[in-house]
Amino acid sequence: MNFSMKEAIEVLERTPQTLEHFLSGLSEGWLQCKEGVGTWNASEVIEHLIEGEKHNWLPRLEMILQEGEGKPFPSFDRFSHLQETSERSIEQKLLEFKTIRAQNIATLQTMIDPDLHLELTGSHPAFGQVKLRELLSTWVVHDLTHITQIVRVMAERYRTDVGPWQEYLGVLKRK
Amino acid sequence: MNFSMKEAIEVLERTPQTLEHFLSGLSEGWLQCKEGVGTWNASEVIEHLIEGEKHNWLPRLEMILQEGEGKPFPSFDRFSHLQETSERSIEQKLLEFKTIRAQNIATLQTMIDPDLHLELTGSHPAFGQVKLRELLSTWVVHDLTHITQIVRVMAERYRTDVGPWQEYLGVLKRK
Repeated sequence: MNFSMKEAIEVLERTPQTLEHFLSGLSEGWLQCKEGVGTWNASEVIEHLIEGEKHNWLPRLEMILQEGEGKPFPSFDRFSHLQETSERSIEQKLLEFKTIRAQNIATLQTMIDPDLHLELTGSHPAFGQVKLRELLSTWVVHDLTHITQIVRVMAERYRTDVGPWQEYLGVLKRK
Repeated sequence: MNFSMKEAIEVLERTPQTLEHFLSGLSEGWLQCKEGVGTWNASEVIEHLIEGEKHNWLPRLEMILQEGEGKPFPSFDRFSHLQETSERSIEQKLLEFKTIRAQNIATLQTMIDPDLHLELTGSHPAFGQVKLRELLSTWVVHDLTHITQIVRVMAERYRTDVGPWQEYLGVLKRK
């Protein structure tokens, strides 16, 4: 096991600022590009991350603490952010993500005692028994998944522009 | 063609600050982890990016401007940074990368006129004829490749920690 609460929080607290410095002020060409029909642009990924902060991670942690395996997690709609119709800028979305993530980390630190709670279990609707530390690890790797997604989508935009170098560029080999 | 000089520079100028906000202050566990023997940790990736700034991108652009296809690019040693033996912190490496990248963008902007130079050609030792705009596009996607590499390497560290969620996490499906 590599998980530690301290190191997990190091990543969780860096994700919003990393994306803020990567995406703020970028041209619409970068922010709106996708990998094809049904895929997400950078702006939609940020909305998905905000949804997770509101409806996924903390509610599930609370359920483990309160219910154990007695009641399965409510399912999380991974596409609900696509109904978002407000015309907010990427900077406004990044600010919301940064704010809610900071609040959630503060809540997490008061809610979870790593000496007591990491092995507690809950019930996932598809997987069955899951541990609290697996959920926390997943929160971290979910961030990493969506950072790579944003970067990969942007790289895709230059797939043909790079000419013969395409075969040297790892990010263009992954879809 | 999606390439534009202005949009390419937007990414080039964001890479150092993005990596700085992602990596500064992280525990050694995150900074030293690898995907296995012969792979690079985050710190080694930053050294590779610095090497590219010193010996790859600008020298090749200059060769296109000065020599055209008359003389192939000298080959770039993609592993030279592994001989780096200094004991610098990640913060010192990130500062060097940020500094040299800012200088190189300033040089690029005085050296290249997008109305005149983008279709100029040079000779790559393996590919033969390449265009200046392909080299610039590759500089951008090379950044994106190495950002995803760093993030993927870190995700790998929690591969088993996430338990059954592994199958939902895209970053763990790409190697």
